[in-house]
Amino acid sequence: MKSAIAELEARGKAAREASKRLAYLSTDVKNRALSNTSRDLLARKDEILAANKEDYKESKASGMSDHMLDRLMLNESRLEAMAGDVLNIASLPDPVGEVFEMRTQPNGLQIGKKRVPLGVIGAIYESRPNVTIDISSLCLKSSNAVILRGGKEAIRSNSVLAGVAQDAAVNAGMPDGAIQFVENTDRALVDHMLTMSDAIDLIIPRGSAGLIRSVVEKARMPVISGGIGVCHTYVDKSADVDKAVAIVYNAKVQRPTVCNALDTLLVHTDIAEGYLPVIAAELAKANVEMHCDQRSLSILKAQSGLKLVPATDEDWGKEFLSLVAAVRVVDSLDEALAHIARYGSGHSEAILTGDYPTAMRFLNEVDAACVYVNASTRFTDGAQFGLGAEVGISTQKFHARGPLGLKELTTYKWIILGSGQVRT
Amino acid sequence: MKSAIAELEARGKAAREASKRLAYLSTDVKNRALSNTSRDLLARKDEILAANKEDYKESKASGMSDHMLDRLMLNESRLEAMAGDVLNIASLPDPVGEVFEMRTQPNGLQIGKKRVPLGVIGAIYESRPNVTIDISSLCLKSSNAVILRGGKEAIRSNSVLAGVAQDAAVNAGMPDGAIQFVENTDRALVDHMLTMSDAIDLIIPRGSAGLIRSVVEKARMPVISGGIGVCHTYVDKSADVDKAVAIVYNAKVQRPTVCNALDTLLVHTDIAEGYLPVIAAELAKANVEMHCDQRSLSILKAQSGLKLVPATDEDWGKEFLSLVAAVRVVDSLDEALAHIARYGSGHSEAILTGDYPTAMRFLNEVDAACVYVNASTRFTDGAQFGLGAEVGISTQKFHARGPLGLKELTTYKWIILGSGQVRT
Repeated sequence: MKSAIAELEARGKAAREASKRLAYLSTDVKNRALSNTSRDLLARKDEILAANKEDYKESKASGMSDHMLDRLMLNESRLEAMAGDVLNIASLPDPVGEVFEMRTQPNGLQIGKKRVPLGVIGAIYESRPNVTIDISSLCLKSSNAVILRGGKEAIRSNSVLAGVAQDAAVNAGMPDGAIQFVENTDRALVDHMLTMSDAIDLIIPRGSAGLIRSVVEKARMPVISGGIGVCHTYVDKSADVDKAVAIVYNAKVQRPTVCNALDTLLVHTDIAEGYLPVIAAELAKANVEMHCDQRSLSILKAQSGLKLVPATDEDWGKEFLSLVAAVRVVDSLDEALAHIARYGSGHSEAILTGDYPTAMRFLNEVDAACVYVNASTRFTDGAQFGLGAEVGISTQKFHARGPLGLKELTTYKWIILGSGQVRT
Repeated sequence: MKSAIAELEARGKAAREASKRLAYLSTDVKNRALSNTSRDLLARKDEILAANKEDYKESKASGMSDHMLDRLMLNESRLEAMAGDVLNIASLPDPVGEVFEMRTQPNGLQIGKKRVPLGVIGAIYESRPNVTIDISSLCLKSSNAVILRGGKEAIRSNSVLAGVAQDAAVNAGMPDGAIQFVENTDRALVDHMLTMSDAIDLIIPRGSAGLIRSVVEKARMPVISGGIGVCHTYVDKSADVDKAVAIVYNAKVQRPTVCNALDTLLVHTDIAEGYLPVIAAELAKANVEMHCDQRSLSILKAQSGLKLVPATDEDWGKEFLSLVAAVRVVDSLDEALAHIARYGSGHSEAILTGDYPTAMRFLNEVDAACVYVNASTRFTDGAQFGLGAEVGISTQKFHARGPLGLKELTTYKWIILGSGQVRT
């Protein structure tokens, strides 16, 4: 363990050293490294898939669930998708070096900000080996060095993938050491990594809620954490029923296992009798189970073909990640806002309404990373928001909120251009 | 202690409640609260000064240093300055509500960001009672609720000042509870406050390096920390000697006790024999003690009237906060950059040069909150940078860097304006 810690410390130092040169590397070199990576992922596919096969075999033998095995598994088409994503990152604008808010002060000093990388990013993740390539590519494009620490279950896959990225980067002229991979999967090493605030500027945890919670608790440096998405859609009395049916159906059904899917449907009492039977019939086609409060239950109970369950207290504020929706009838916008304030997780919240002041109040008063009017919460995503790629979705308020792209992996420094000015 | 913790928890809840209404309060109301505060600071000066006199008497009796007593002391002119600062904050543009980066996606969704307050700020500070008014005014203007926890030595002054701000805010129509003041000065209460991550979104510590270190270590929420400023000025071989003398003199002498004052002077060997005797003679007039490396010592040792001391290893990377400067001759820009990278604290660094590529390399390669060309590092300050007021100066990279104004007390939420869009 002692030597593993010494090695980790050495990786930290090497990443810090590399980050200094990365900071002012040309976009050309970075893009060349990315296109090399993309090419080599395909060129070295046999090696990658062989390593992944071993990981898969061992994980299966040790009783890993099918769901987790699926996340672990690589095949040719997944490798091709991974290679395509890397090329896509290469095609995004380079965030580093942008000068902004430049102004001239009365004394002639020109003062502004220049966008620079954060420095060294630590990534702690589980199962999915594509995270090795995703995160290292995003870090590389944003001129950050990265220390990768993947899970034991994917150690062989991650090791080969990290090697591909490292080789491609160095061959393109990137400084050696920009991509560090931690081979030792001892848990205690993660704890030590989280204390290395001199070497690591930001930690990105990717994985289960348990992993994220543990990282947030122990890290001595900033952490970008996503956490859960408890998403509400409120159908106001002035909503267009057809659109409200299409949007709510989409928010719940299009991909129920993700954080931006609908969890709770709130419906204004004035529209409930007209709206609920229509949306319920649609949701029933997709086999959605509705956990209804008393008022929605009394509207729907006579309707055939529905999967209705009386809601319990645990249904409010629950992230279902499945074909289940909680449903509640409210008397007013105020009641909807209060419900969202109490039970929301600060991820994505939507109102469907035709009324301007109602839309404005919802936009102003809901405190969440993403607040929608008349659209599906499923759009909360870096690519959908026009960021190209995303590192994750932040539900915290500090530094950045919502989908995080390349820019969110940067900070700025003030630059001050003078001609001899002194302070009086 | 148990009841003090319960009270603190209640204050946290009350601040959180107030913050929800603060978030969408009009600028008019906020400015009225600030102008009321400014007015009442003067109207209630007898009460404030009487409380401060007691704090002062007790602190003096307990053996507080003159330096600390001076920080604690209020008088009529200091109160007037405080009242003026509050009016100044009222005159600054309101950062909250700004909509930016709004764009229309191909599917017609309008997606952008809206600036919103962080929520609840916790301030932990020592001695200077003006911090009570400074921080609460900045929080109020940026629509944040605040929990103030000042030091024991100023408890009476802080209590009256917080009362003035609270009364003025409520009278102007601000929600009750927006400004919370912790009367109990038990140290253990600070430790508890630093665990209240549900109630507090950001902690701002103001005071000694020890206080800041302890807060950073214990806080479970983000902390904006300033820390120390070890500032270098590098005089390149192509520098204009007259300007370089004026700038270095200003950076060291104009106010030596602050974080943006010069600590180490680096001089290129080609200009050292011409430059060092001139700047040394100037610095000697202000009684500056120079801690010289061997090469600068050999240039200056024959010159009369100088306070020269051979530099030791401890002089590099030291924040002197006094009329002392470390001096080193370097052979190249690379050597200067390496010295700054090794010993700088990421605060403010300057180059004095007439050479364009040299200036550009310095701007690109120095990793600090503020990087200067041909100007005094003394300009690192919110007011000097055009931010109006400042909460502090950050030497961290996350969220914000350098002088922090009102905008840095905010975050954003994504707003998505649709007309029925669903994800396919």
